[in-house]
Amino acid sequence: MKRRLLLVSNSTLHGGGYLQHCQQQIQDFFGKNVKRILFVPYALQDRDAYTKTARDKFKTLGGGNTFRLLKALYDNKLVTEIRKRVLEDGIPYMGSSAGTNVSTISINTTNDMPIVYPPTFAAIGLVPFNINPHYLDADPNSKHMGETREQRIVQYHEEHDTPCVLGLREGSLLLVEGNKATLLGSTKARLFKRGKHTTEYEPGSDLSFLLTDAQ
Amino acid sequence: MKRRLLLVSNSTLHGGGYLQHCQQQIQDFFGKNVKRILFVPYALQDRDAYTKTARDKFKTLGGGNTFRLLKALYDNKLVTEIRKRVLEDGIPYMGSSAGTNVSTISINTTNDMPIVYPPTFAAIGLVPFNINPHYLDADPNSKHMGETREQRIVQYHEEHDTPCVLGLREGSLLLVEGNKATLLGSTKARLFKRGKHTTEYEPGSDLSFLLTDAQ
Repeated sequence: MKRRLLLVSNSTLHGGGYLQHCQQQIQDFFGKNVKRILFVPYALQDRDAYTKTARDKFKTLGGGNTFRLLKALYDNKLVTEIRKRVLEDGIPYMGSSAGTNVSTISINTTNDMPIVYPPTFAAIGLVPFNINPHYLDADPNSKHMGETREQRIVQYHEEHDTPCVLGLREGSLLLVEGNKATLLGSTKARLFKRGKHTTEYEPGSDLSFLLTDAQ
Repeated sequence: MKRRLLLVSNSTLHGGGYLQHCQQQIQDFFGKNVKRILFVPYALQDRDAYTKTARDKFKTLGGGNTFRLLKALYDNKLVTEIRKRVLEDGIPYMGSSAGTNVSTISINTTNDMPIVYPPTFAAIGLVPFNINPHYLDADPNSKHMGETREQRIVQYHEEHDTPCVLGLREGSLLLVEGNKATLLGSTKARLFKRGKHTTEYEPGSDLSFLLTDAQ
């Protein structure tokens, strides 16, 4: 398995610039030999402006609206192609937020608003689990009565036996190299398994067990 | 047009009991002559328990996950039937949160997590616009970098020319009687039209113009 993935929770961390919080990891991930990057701007409406931004400053890779991104990937027949290039040919894949969601089994655990209808919620499937980017702990002082993020993920598991859902808080990212997965960044991640207690993982944790199909 | 709808933003308001914040409006809406209510428990997993709760205490009507509710309505071939009964036969319809989302043109402006894949995002269509329940103003002190609710609705309008989106804050509800729509409750509502400035409406406002197709 040649896959090399860098899956980022969020493009911007409060108080920092775009992708500043994971700049070192991005440099390490792509290294010095990468000359060209294929940027997929589908998640925002103005693709030219978005691409220019990314080219100029290497910003906000893969952020935007997950439904729009996945629908455009299918409309342009790119889902199978990206999967093949990443899993078979070892092309590195980096995503942030929406770009992280579409790299997993499905977009069932995105936070985004369903502004367009993709042909399926099944995604590229570079890893055999789901991720919830921008994972947010419940605020005990909030007066808002909408469901907490944890309640939403529990509802997801009411409908699906597998897979696990990894809640990546803002500031955390997952590095996948072949069959090894490592949590990077500055914040902990929270793992949800159906019918089990949730588990917290510190940055630096080995999460390779998530890459086996029988988690 | 015989329709009579009561569309509630949220079942529980901070500091109050279930549906307490709109108890009077519910009594006025159903009146003394209604002997039976059809409760649709599809939005939560345990339908029997949910129905019992609703029967016992008239709680949380129509709340839960919007994707699960809409999928079950289609699976059980109820979408067209409910539309017919409400629009042609004048059966009163009340929804809260998810139940409000499915009563509109589409569920494109729900806040819920897409835990299941419905056959379409088109919904019952009892009104010719969309609603965002639990509408939330941006918190200037938040360090969270996910999109604000306003940004999400703007993204929706990047993809759709129409319809309007009515942001119903917690504590507000919309009463529709035939071709008359009135904002009720304790909080203002915010109306989003594509490419226009947003407008705030006070409780008591006449929103009947939203019911004409050419808004």
